[in-house]
Amino acid sequence: MSDVEDVVTLLESRVKALEDQLALYRIVGTYGPAMDTGSAEAAGSLWAEDGVYEFDTMRATGPAGIAAMAKSDAMRAQFEQGSAHVASMPLVRITGDKAQATGYTRVYLHSPEGYDVWRVAASHWEFVRTTEGWRVSRRTNRVIDGSPEAREILRRGLGSVGS
Amino acid sequence: MSDVEDVVTLLESRVKALEDQLALYRIVGTYGPAMDTGSAEAAGSLWAEDGVYEFDTMRATGPAGIAAMAKSDAMRAQFEQGSAHVASMPLVRITGDKAQATGYTRVYLHSPEGYDVWRVAASHWEFVRTTEGWRVSRRTNRVIDGSPEAREILRRGLGSVGS
Amino acid sequence: MSDVEDVVTLLESRVKALEDQLALYRIVGTYGPAMDTGSAEAAGSLWAEDGVYEFDTMRATGPAGIAAMAKSDAMRAQFEQGSAHVASMPLVRITGDKAQATGYTRVYLHSPEGYDVWRVAASHWEFVRTTEGWRVSRRTNRVIDGSPEAREILRRGLGSVGS
Repeated sequence: MSDVEDVVTLLESRVKALEDQLALYRIVGTYGPAMDTGSAEAAGSLWAEDGVYEFDTMRATGPAGIAAMAKSDAMRAQFEQGSAHVASMPLVRITGDKAQATGYTRVYLHSPEGYDVWRVAASHWEFVRTTEGWRVSRRTNRVIDGSPEAREILRRGLGSVGS
Repeated sequence: MSDVEDVVTLLESRVKALEDQLALYRIVGTYGPAMDTGSAEAAGSLWAEDGVYEFDTMRATGPAGIAAMAKSDAMRAQFEQGSAHVASMPLVRITGDKAQATGYTRVYLHSPEGYDVWRVAASHWEFVRTTEGWRVSRRTNRVIDGSPEAREILRRGLGSVGS
Repeated sequence: MSDVEDVVTLLESRVKALEDQLALYRIVGTYGPAMDTGSAEAAGSLWAEDGVYEFDTMRATGPAGIAAMAKSDAMRAQFEQGSAHVASMPLVRITGDKAQATGYTRVYLHSPEGYDVWRVAASHWEFVRTTEGWRVSRRTNRVIDGSPEAREILRRGLGSVGS
């Protein structure tokens, strides 16, 4: 029976890895709807207590810092105009109780003439597994405007596809 | 042996949940290509017989109603101009034989100058598991233009990330 | 015990199919960051030795051909201006050691006024499983401008959602 038990143990870890990846997709995909609705608690709950969000030259820390962004006048002005913070399907890597994801974000803003693509950026997310699930330990977001910082972020998502 | 059997039974349900989530991704991702090609049958087959699509102030019902949208003159005019109905990676929740997904949709239209982002909207999908697989029981789509209806839809996708 | 063993064997194949699908998501999602950073090796490594990329009227072959695209002056000019090649979540089908994916791609380019949606296209990917993992055997990409070629690609992604 040890053979079957070994296979089952291995299967459990493979299923766990798949569940982890979809859970990380969910975190990346939750940020936008939280910001576009001013949902401060939902946005903040994505981050670990000491988690950081580095956004161009700005920086927010922990659930309270992220919640403050979601409640800010700037964010309210955007979503009352009509905003969509849309994340691409990210490239995810999981290493035990840590993980990272890399992807694009776009902010579409409504205007009388239609929609403007107001911002396109690269994001690198780092996650830590807590007793309550995955939380963001660090997110770095840089606008894509030709400067090397955004390319440096995108490069972190690349790697061997053979594994 | 009951221990291994218990683990296997639990694994089966976890694998089923993962398969369900990817199947729902597929349904959400199929709508756009079906509309952009006028594929009436493919579009209609996503919906349950009594499934509803509420689209701003319009409403279509069942496979026949959705198929009629795909075959409409308005849709044909869009795809002959060059249209891309692109859905974001949705936030999915599964509860037994029901499920929901929340996400953004964008319609890009070709023009002599390039592409316009013609429409950005929020969508909430409800699904029911049938003997033939998941089908849409209700989809609600509201344009993102600053009005509260779209934000109400996006909020439905938010929730605890701890589970 | 044969019952449990049968269930476990079936579970293994189901888990493998899920892992395959996420691996294919990763390949589709890696192309853009590789191009937007001029990462020739990462881009090339996605393709099989005899894999082809048909791009409107152009054609590249194998890792060396794709790498040359990533290193081209045209691609460099784009990413130094600020470019984002973003793929939609694709529709994936796996058939043994072959697979295909269908989806949209968009190229956003930075400009002094914001961002232009420079190109929207339809992509059909074919993959082959190698001893080193999945590789692209053929990718066909056609601009969405109202001509029938892009619609023909999108139609390949459609199919029964019941299975």
